[in-house]
Amino acid sequence: MSFYDKLKFDAAGLIPTIIQEQKTGRVLMMAWMNRASLESTVKTGKTHFWSRSRQKFWMKGEESGHTQTVKDIAFDCDGDCLLIQVDQIGAACHEGFQSCFFRSVNGDEFKVTEKQLQKPEEIYGKKK
Amino acid sequence: MSFYDKLKFDAAGLIPTIIQEQKTGRVLMMAWMNRASLESTVKTGKTHFWSRSRQKFWMKGEESGHTQTVKDIAFDCDGDCLLIQVDQIGAACHEGFQSCFFRSVNGDEFKVTEKQLQKPEEIYGKKK
Repeated sequence: MSFYDKLKFDAAGLIPTIIQEQKTGRVLMMAWMNRASLESTVKTGKTHFWSRSRQKFWMKGEESGHTQTVKDIAFDCDGDCLLIQVDQIGAACHEGFQSCFFRSVNGDEFKVTEKQLQKPEEIYGKKK
Repeated sequence: MSFYDKLKFDAAGLIPTIIQEQKTGRVLMMAWMNRASLESTVKTGKTHFWSRSRQKFWMKGEESGHTQTVKDIAFDCDGDCLLIQVDQIGAACHEGFQSCFFRSVNGDEFKVTEKQLQKPEEIYGKKK
């Protein structure tokens, strides 16, 4: 049976996808895939997503060079979430942190728990 | 600033929440929280969720005893996803696996990558 038959995409045709760095176990980000982006991910070995805000297909790292090489694709018991192990080049977060989850709850407030590796303008260049 | 001000719940009032076992780094599950379940999670130190299929508030482990004690609550750069570190008692998956992500893509098919720790009927009792 194809693994696609086990997956449930939501009403918008999307499935939430957790990206974990294989060598460290750090959860880097969560993004959304549709069937086409999952197929491209499987075919190319680089993660591809669907941007809900931009309504656009994108390859992680296409602008920044911070690509993700796929090591494993797992799916959960309900078939409605993916967990992908990757090798990450550079910062996963567009704000220049290793992980998008760089802030943690601290009492009623929050704290930054990681060092910022790069400024966004160093990754993407200055907006004109 | 309260961390709640950084969070974006979706149109249904929900935010996807990744649960990771702190001591092993294993991603155990993904489930959905609304504001009330997050508040209960913060207040009690045990994870609470909102079930979309059952339209019901639930505490993880309320039937199985497989509760999750919260060690850290992180949120991502967009404020639309949570990552919670926990101490997990027993199997996280209702199918008796440590993690809900117990299947991985294998060519066009998939394989089971973890040992099943318990049968569901051992966890929940036989349905009458």
